Amino acid sequence: MAAKNTQVLLANRPTGWVKESDFRIVETEIPAPGDGQVLIKNRFLSLDPYMRGRMNDQRSYAAKVELGQVMTGETVGEVIDSRNAKFHKGDMVAARAGWQQYALSDGGDLRKVDAELVPISTYLGVVGMPGVTAWIGINDIGQPKAGETVVVSAASGAVGSVAGQLAKTKDCRVVGIAGGQEKCDFVVKELGFDACIDHRAGNLQQALAAATPKGIDVYFENVGGPILDAVLARCNPFARIPLCGMVSQYNAVERYGVQNLMMAVGMRIKLQGFIVSDHLARWPEALKELTRGVRDGRIKYRETVTEGLQNAPRAFIGLLKGENFGKQLVKLA
Amino acid sequence: MAAKNTQVLLANRPTGWVKESDFRIVETEIPAPGDGQVLIKNRFLSLDPYMRGRMNDQRSYAAKVELGQVMTGETVGEVIDSRNAKFHKGDMVAARAGWQQYALSDGGDLRKVDAELVPISTYLGVVGMPGVTAWIGINDIGQPKAGETVVVSAASGAVGSVAGQLAKTKDCRVVGIAGGQEKCDFVVKELGFDACIDHRAGNLQQALAAATPKGIDVYFENVGGPILDAVLARCNPFARIPLCGMVSQYNAVERYGVQNLMMAVGMRIKLQGFIVSDHLARWPEALKELTRGVRDGRIKYRETVTEGLQNAPRAFIGLLKGENFGKQLVKLA
Repeated sequence: MAAKNTQVLLANRPTGWVKESDFRIVETEIPAPGDGQVLIKNRFLSLDPYMRGRMNDQRSYAAKVELGQVMTGETVGEVIDSRNAKFHKGDMVAARAGWQQYALSDGGDLRKVDAELVPISTYLGVVGMPGVTAWIGINDIGQPKAGETVVVSAASGAVGSVAGQLAKTKDCRVVGIAGGQEKCDFVVKELGFDACIDHRAGNLQQALAAATPKGIDVYFENVGGPILDAVLARCNPFARIPLCGMVSQYNAVERYGVQNLMMAVGMRIKLQGFIVSDHLARWPEALKELTRGVRDGRIKYRETVTEGLQNAPRAFIGLLKGENFGKQLVKLA
Repeated sequence: MAAKNTQVLLANRPTGWVKESDFRIVETEIPAPGDGQVLIKNRFLSLDPYMRGRMNDQRSYAAKVELGQVMTGETVGEVIDSRNAKFHKGDMVAARAGWQQYALSDGGDLRKVDAELVPISTYLGVVGMPGVTAWIGINDIGQPKAGETVVVSAASGAVGSVAGQLAKTKDCRVVGIAGGQEKCDFVVKELGFDACIDHRAGNLQQALAAATPKGIDVYFENVGGPILDAVLARCNPFARIPLCGMVSQYNAVERYGVQNLMMAVGMRIKLQGFIVSDHLARWPEALKELTRGVRDGRIKYRETVTEGLQNAPRAFIGLLKGENFGKQLVKLA
């Protein structure tokens, strides 16, 4: 066992692009569990775009990370000491344990995971928060019907890849948008989307028109910016746009102005922001369906695993730039 | 009876601001009703912002007006000849009879109106399409709850004035946005809104913050542009934004870019475009409530009545510029 607890703290609130110097890596004592607490040794840390928002000093749905605090984040780890009757040494758990090797918990944020069922890393991705987010956005907000056209941005990512595969099970035409030909090939050949547009190739509007000959009925939004404008111009009447994220805007000093929102009036488009934590009652059903899909190979996924917590800041910046491929994880031990 | 039928035709498709020369006024023969038809003499023509969209050659929810065709629009008029068993000479009807003095109808677009109940002009405003639009937007999309804050743009207009008054009946704090102090005074003193912001006075963001100390829960959107951005920045979690119109953008050659749409993700805001004609099943209930409100004085309204069809183009342009006050009508006879 390491003698120290490596932690990544928020050192500065970034303006525009995050820099590695906005984080500080420290070594502290490994804490001992008090009464009712467990000590977790984290195996994997999840990196997710929403974390960028937690670095800001602004009004948001969730508490910001304070300067000098450990960065917030989901992990999967092992209980290595327990003074809580519900958890035992050796239990594998999903936790909100942050960017650190060891963490204490009173158990409230812990969910036991079954390492025999699916690889433990997937509890941070396809069968974790990103997968359930996709499931909620498709099933409860987008609600695509057979024969409709569904467009998914960040289509090779942790959320988008699941959103599109779920839409395919509903007999929709599913079109991905991703950055680069390699990701697009993966989205079509591995994930089974009907088409995928490389938004870096230019001519987005024309490519989208060619890929969506019957217009767009559902747009699963992860990216924002010009992609949203291009999609709005192709939306059919009564289109639904679950707003899951707008990663293109998180580091923008001057935000992109969406010009086609006016289309939403005449086309009766619904745009709806959502966050998975508002829908916890749906988690068990989502988890069951996603786990079954992963086990029988119908739902595919891809991971980018960065080794070592000290590389988490660099990996996080890469995630925001779209340099990762699939779910971005950090392996801690 | 006039010997001729004055009609206003679409002469040019405008780019940017509508000009009077985009219309052509002609005199034609008064038609005679065929079997099953009625001849209507229009008394009032309604002018509404949506008509601007009908002048464009673009994909929309409704058929565009063809060049050389009579401009489309709602009227209230009198049946002066009938070969349809359901309608009799002397019946007052609401019709989709267009910008003309006389019109034939097979009865499909006609609704008998009761001239004893409320003034016939109100069937084009507060108890007509604009009033029902407000009713649908508030009751079925915005759904404000007691204690919430509701903001309404174009607050002195035909739709906004009703939307805000309906929200007041639900014990909400209601804040209007209108152009000019005279309209704002009317909105507060006559319509009973809690506050009204003159968007022409500058400092919209600060004025909005002062008028909505608890944030914004429902925004009834008629205007778009910078007002929408200012509102998005003040929205509470789970805010609802019925998108009824975006009149500030209808004549824009370059549309305004909405920068704060990203707030919709974290705040789980729902923006939903709607058109009253999708909700016809709700019309009778809305009409009953609005008529009762007008009769007992709880729902107030204001009209700008322009005399003579030849002045309709000028009045329509004024409407798009916000020069009218309340419901813009043209009196034909």
